[in-house]
Formats: sequence, C-alpha cells, structure tokens
Amino acid sequence: MASFSKRMDGVTGSAIRELFKLTARPGVISFGGGNPSPAALPDDIVCDISRELVATNGKVLLQYGMTEGLPSLREALVPYIEEEFQVKADVTTILPVTGSTQAFNLLLDAYTDPGDVILTENPTFLGATQAMHLHQLQVVPVDSDGEGLRMAALEDAIKKHHPKLLYTIPTFQNPTGVTLSLARRKRIAELAEQYDLLVAEDDPYHSLRYSGTAMPTIKSFDKAGKVALMGSFSKVISPGLRVGFLVCEPQLMRKCVICKQSDDLHTANLNQAIVEAYLRRDLLRPHVAKVCACYGEQLNCMLSYLQNMRGVQRFTHPEGGLFVFAWLHEGVNATEMLMKAVEKGVAYVPGTHFYPDGGHDNTLRLNFSNADLATIQRGMALLDECLKA
Amino acid sequence: MASFSKRMDGVTGSAIRELFKLTARPGVISFGGGNPSPAALPDDIVCDISRELVATNGKVLLQYGMTEGLPSLREALVPYIEEEFQVKADVTTILPVTGSTQAFNLLLDAYTDPGDVILTENPTFLGATQAMHLHQLQVVPVDSDGEGLRMAALEDAIKKHHPKLLYTIPTFQNPTGVTLSLARRKRIAELAEQYDLLVAEDDPYHSLRYSGTAMPTIKSFDKAGKVALMGSFSKVISPGLRVGFLVCEPQLMRKCVICKQSDDLHTANLNQAIVEAYLRRDLLRPHVAKVCACYGEQLNCMLSYLQNMRGVQRFTHPEGGLFVFAWLHEGVNATEMLMKAVEKGVAYVPGTHFYPDGGHDNTLRLNFSNADLATIQRGMALLDECLKA
Repeated sequence: MASFSKRMDGVTGSAIRELFKLTARPGVISFGGGNPSPAALPDDIVCDISRELVATNGKVLLQYGMTEGLPSLREALVPYIEEEFQVKADVTTILPVTGSTQAFNLLLDAYTDPGDVILTENPTFLGATQAMHLHQLQVVPVDSDGEGLRMAALEDAIKKHHPKLLYTIPTFQNPTGVTLSLARRKRIAELAEQYDLLVAEDDPYHSLRYSGTAMPTIKSFDKAGKVALMGSFSKVISPGLRVGFLVCEPQLMRKCVICKQSDDLHTANLNQAIVEAYLRRDLLRPHVAKVCACYGEQLNCMLSYLQNMRGVQRFTHPEGGLFVFAWLHEGVNATEMLMKAVEKGVAYVPGTHFYPDGGHDNTLRLNFSNADLATIQRGMALLDECLKA
Repeated sequence: MASFSKRMDGVTGSAIRELFKLTARPGVISFGGGNPSPAALPDDIVCDISRELVATNGKVLLQYGMTEGLPSLREALVPYIEEEFQVKADVTTILPVTGSTQAFNLLLDAYTDPGDVILTENPTFLGATQAMHLHQLQVVPVDSDGEGLRMAALEDAIKKHHPKLLYTIPTFQNPTGVTLSLARRKRIAELAEQYDLLVAEDDPYHSLRYSGTAMPTIKSFDKAGKVALMGSFSKVISPGLRVGFLVCEPQLMRKCVICKQSDDLHTANLNQAIVEAYLRRDLLRPHVAKVCACYGEQLNCMLSYLQNMRGVQRFTHPEGGLFVFAWLHEGVNATEMLMKAVEKGVAYVPGTHFYPDGGHDNTLRLNFSNADLATIQRGMALLDECLKA
C-alpha cells in the first residue's frame, strides 16, 4: 500500500473516544463524555414530529435538497439566531450543517492552508484540535484564566504569530466550563478587525445557562464581518440528529457552501425539518428550560462534592454547559489515576488531552449532564475514595 | 478580509447546480438533474418506519453514535454487500457515511496530497471532479469508449503519470450510462495491484439495472486491498436521507474513520436505522424491483425518441442507471442551445461540464428517472423541435 496522505501523519483519532472504549465497562459511572442526559432526549416529540413531517411533506424531504439547506429551516433560524445569539443574520448568511464540527471544518477548508497559524484557548476542545491537525495547521494555544482567553496574551500571540484564525468557545467552554467576560468579547471583535483575524466562535452550549445572565456573542459585536458563529442543536435537542448551523459574512459563506457541496452535498432533509419544527412550534424554549433545571441541579451537586474533596486543589464554577474542570494537587497524575478510578467504578477525562502542548497532568474534566443526581453522588464519592487512596 | 485558502482558487461550485437555478422555471421539463422519480421515494414506508424506530429505540437514536456507524446497520450491510456487490466484507471494513460523496472525500483526505495525480474516466461525474480540485489534485482524464475506460489508455496514463488513485463509476456511469465490461473490471483490479494504485469504485447506480445481466464489482476481483467500493442508498431509497457506505481494507478504513470523526463525528442515527430497517425487513429488494420497472420504461421511451431525432448523431444505450449521453452533430453547441431549449420548455446538462479538460461542446446528458412517461414524451418532442430549429 502506498503511503497515506501527509495530513494523516501523527493523527491518531480522538484520544477521548479511544479512552471511552477502555472505560466503557458495565457498571462504571462515566463523567467522561459530553452526552446529553437520556432524559433530555425528546424521543416522544421527535417520534410524532418525524411521522407527521414525512406524512405531510415526504416527497420533498426524501428528495435531494439544496446545499444551502432547507429554505424553511433557514428562515426559521433567522429570528432564532437573533433572539438567542443577538446576531442579525439573513438566509444568505446562515447555513444549516451536520453539527458545529462540520461548520468548523468548512471554515478551515475555505480559509486556511497548511502551515497557517491558528490560535486556541489553552486548554481547548480536542475535536477542534484534531480538525486543525488534519488541516496541517500550526496550533498556538493562548493562556486562559477564569474569564476565558487573556487579552494581553492574545494580542501578543497575534503580533508574534500572525494567525489566520482564532478558535474559541466563549460560553461554558469545553473543557473548563468558563465563560468569556463581556469586555473580552468586545475586545476580541475589535482585535479581529484590527489584525484581520477570522474568529471561529463555537457556541454549542449557549442556551444551557443555569445561573447568571445571558452574555451576547462575540459575533454580536462584529462590525467587520470577521467573526463566524457556529451553533448546534446537539446539546439542546439531540446529537444523534446531527444538525447545527454556521453564520458568517456572505463571501466566506459562498466558499463554505462550495466546500459543503463537495463534502456531503447537503444535510439530511428530515433532520433539518425536525429542528425547524422545534423552532416554529416553540418547542425548543420549554424543552431547554426543562433540561436546564435538571442540569443545573446536577452541576450544583457535583460542585458541592468537589468543595469537600481534599484531593482537589481547585475547580471551575461554570454557570452553564456540561463540564467542570478540576486541578488535583501538584504531582498527582490524572491519567495514571484513571485506570484505578475505573476499577472503583468511575471514569473522567484526564485534562492533559485538552492542552495542545500536553502537560497539566494534575487536571481532569468532569461531565455532569449524562448522569442523574443519585449517580453523580455515587460517582463523586468513588472519585473521592480514589483521591484519598 | 484576508485571502481564502489556496484550495478555493478557481473552484466556483458545481456548474450544474448553478445551471439548475437558471433552468428551474415553472413548467420547464428537466432532464437535467439526477433525482429519483417522486414516485420512487417511499414516503409511506419511511413515515411508518421512522415513527416506529424512534418510538422503540429513540433514546439510542437521538444520542451520540459511533463514528464507525450504527453497529446494527454495519452488521446488516455485511450480507447486503456480499449479495448485491459480490464483496466479502466484515463490520471492520464497512463504514456507513452520508452518501458516496462523503466516502470519496474521506478517501481523498486519507490517501492524497496536493499535487498528486488522479485518473478519471472522460467524461466523468462533476461532483467528483470538484472534490479533486478542492483537494488540489492533478486530474488526468483517461479515454473511455462504449465499454468504459480503455485499458491501453489507462495503462499508458499509469506509466506516464504515476497516479495515486483512479476514480471510476464502472456501472451505468454518470454521465454516459456506460457499463465497464467484465474483462476490463478484472484488468483494473490487476493493474491496481501491479502499479500500487488505489481504485475508488463509485457504484451508486449498481442496483438500477433494467436489462442485461448483473456485473460483479471491480472490488470483487480485488485480492490486494487496492479497491475501495463506495455505495449509496440515495438512488434506491432516498437521497434526502443521506446514507451511503464505504468498503475498503482495514488500514485505510482506520484513516477514513479518523477523517470522518473530524468531519462530522458520525452519520445521523435515525437515517442509518431507516436504511437498516430496509435491509433487515427485505423492503429494499421489492422497492428496487418496482423502481426498476418504471425507470426501464422511461429509459426505453427516451431511447426511442433519440433514435428518431435527426439532430442527434449518436447516443449511449445504457442497461440501467439514470442517464443517457448524446452527441449532436459537429458544430452544434449544446451550451448555446440550452437557453433556447429552456425557452421552449425543456432542460438538460451540456456534456462539456463532465469533461475535465472541457470541449466536446456537441454533447449533452439526459436524465430519464425524474420525469414520467408522458413528460418524457413531451420533453423529447420539445428537444427535437429545438434541434430542428
């Protein structure tokens, strides 16, 4: 067999997904994934909607669709994106995609060449880092603190590396759960314009807020068309449906549409129509409210345990999202501890995987959405035992 | 705005899709697309199945799935691929994807670098050519005749250009409808092994045979793991569902799975489950039989008109698929004629778009699947008028 492409060099697939295979033993409580709670997956509603949609519009939904997306979904996304994300868009600047993962790939396809520099938070989402590596980009992580990306470090990195793109998850970040402050959001929009930097704003957790007040997107401060907003219905309706969206200025959008045409022709119509029904029938708002009430309790439960765990040095205090990030005492190796934890019956993701340059071995990411309260209590007690050992 | 990526240079999106926007006037009969007939889209069955699947397994289908695909679909694909394509595969060498378009992109991602040479039929499928351009490959078309790729020309091109990959649609080719002969299929498998060439065998029309006898795939002669088979359920169930599959040797498959993980995480579960139900409940076979009976009549109808059109120099005689390819008299320009044809009320795709090097201005592609018999009759009469003018 001839050699594989250069873009595959050193790319081994998501370490986390591989980890899941190791830790997915029967009976093990997993704080590892980013899965919605089974209770949050609206099978009853989707069941009725999908039947109805195919019954009334099946010939259209089963036929080829436009790469640009189901026109009626794009129209329904306009007011949704304005209300929820404070972004004025129209049908020509909105593209339904198969999740924000695809949106990010389209941006990388349309806008970056191998060797270009891309800035990220430190730590950041592993899936995004993998996409960067497959695009042969040079990943430069920028220091972050309890308010997200540090502005001085960001501007220094821009001046030093002349990056093409900044990838950021400003709201309830993965893996930290941290939310970027308002002042920094405004500042990033300014820096993007000043330095001709494209900002890929990944906002899949936006609507999952359990305390504090809603924060406008970076995109809402974008006067120069330098911010691309990526959203997803994976965390608020269903990840299995694979529907998200991209919002960006028309020229870049045109390129992204061409890339999507070549990638997968279009997003499946029925899946788009299900999301559309959620928006048009005002099903999303009450569903998210219900989900947030549960996840908020689950977060508080996890935080209260962390507060009392002597093995934990510090941890983030997210106001929403799916994850808490914790620092164990220096010298404790979360990767080494993982197999012991799994033996005891609890799993998490070692934080080192989220740092593009590795290290930070005493960190871990905990998910609180996928387990109910009783399970979180049992899992945290097991983790505490592990840390005491 | 900084410059877009180099891979976008000169890529303008599918000329055909743009053409459709021009020709999609109310009342215009379109022989332009590659759409299944509305009558062939099983909305009644998908309606019941989707309801039932979500009702009985909704929590699984709405949750995240594996990049490798729904395990139960992969299992159902094993006997299907063996019976229908004469290929022995197992779950580790089958990947459900969002159509053969994605399958081809994964192969290009995993196996090619910018500048690599890729061989194609001449003419070939425009969507594939676009994917090649976006991967910055050097496209070398190889002469084809009424039995598909010419073997001497293929071997010459291999020796001269040292290609990484051959892209071929051996059965009811797009745009010609031509089927590669048995001897040439065996020979291509041999050449692939001899010259370490990866063959991307695109076979979306495989089951749409209306006359003649079924032909084994090139993959069925592949002893060296040098052939990747791409299939699709778009033409036999529904394109709007976006489900297809890739079959290739395990090492290459592993790379493709990594690329897919980064592209879209996984194919939507409900869509995979609908296809699985078609396979497990033996719904596909009778559905395809019904569809073939209709399409076969439609093809014969179109051929009988072509036979009597003096403006047509020659045309292909496909035994299946969706397309007939025709040569007008030398000097007639099918692109120039198109707008006149649309004025009259009929549309087609000028054949020049399918030739990577352009030219062949007197050719056109006609689709016969999307219009019923009466519509084909009217459309062909209009085309005849056009040619007489």
